Amino acid sequence: MDDDLIPSVFARDCASRGVLANVTGRWGGLALAALHEGSFRFNALRRRVDGVSEKMLAQTLQALERDGLVRREVQATIPPRVEYSLTEFGTRVAAKFVELIELVEGEIGTAREAQEAYDRAH
Amino acid sequence: MDDDLIPSVFARDCASRGVLANVTGRWGGLALAALHEGSFRFNALRRRVDGVSEKMLAQTLQALERDGLVRREVQATIPPRVEYSLTEFGTRVAAKFVELIELVEGEIGTAREAQEAYDRAH
Repeated sequence: MDDDLIPSVFARDCASRGVLANVTGRWGGLALAALHEGSFRFNALRRRVDGVSEKMLAQTLQALERDGLVRREVQATIPPRVEYSLTEFGTRVAAKFVELIELVEGEIGTAREAQEAYDRAH
Repeated sequence: MDDDLIPSVFARDCASRGVLANVTGRWGGLALAALHEGSFRFNALRRRVDGVSEKMLAQTLQALERDGLVRREVQATIPPRVEYSLTEFGTRVAAKFVELIELVEGEIGTAREAQEAYDRAH
């Protein structure tokens, strides 16, 4: 994207599409939503985001840190303690994502009925 | 997920996680955001969502239709005209997703600065 242009996720080369992809990727949104509840150490976060592998969570957190959404803090204890939390930008994005999650969770009955109707018809 | 339980995207087997994955998948969110602007025929939608292949867009629309977010209407013209639009549920989800997109687009400068700082440090 040229700096002169208005950012648009619809344009394939716009940087905003990359950030959005990290936010909404397989694990990115769930990690953000978990961190919206508070800061976590790596293993505790992994337990919260049920089903994520160690490798995928590490990659997800790196991408979110690089985008300025997640802060990684190493505390000088022995052994060192690594804690993940949201930045100010991350907090705003996570809050919006949590709203999306709550909408989907609240309408899961609607979705299931639609799925059953679709599967009968196809 | 048991019907008795509160739906939770954090649980790996919860149906809401599947719907959320379709909404926020590589192309799902962009397709919803495009349809939030109005109904589209397949090829027009494909042009709007820059970079999506025919196959991926077809699969994306099928998944969104199955979840009850997108309506597919075949008009009895020759040749038949197929139009995609949002359901009431889809409109609410798309509106929330558009808010998320606007937040990310509006803060793309924050994200880019963070990316540059991260890349210098790593």
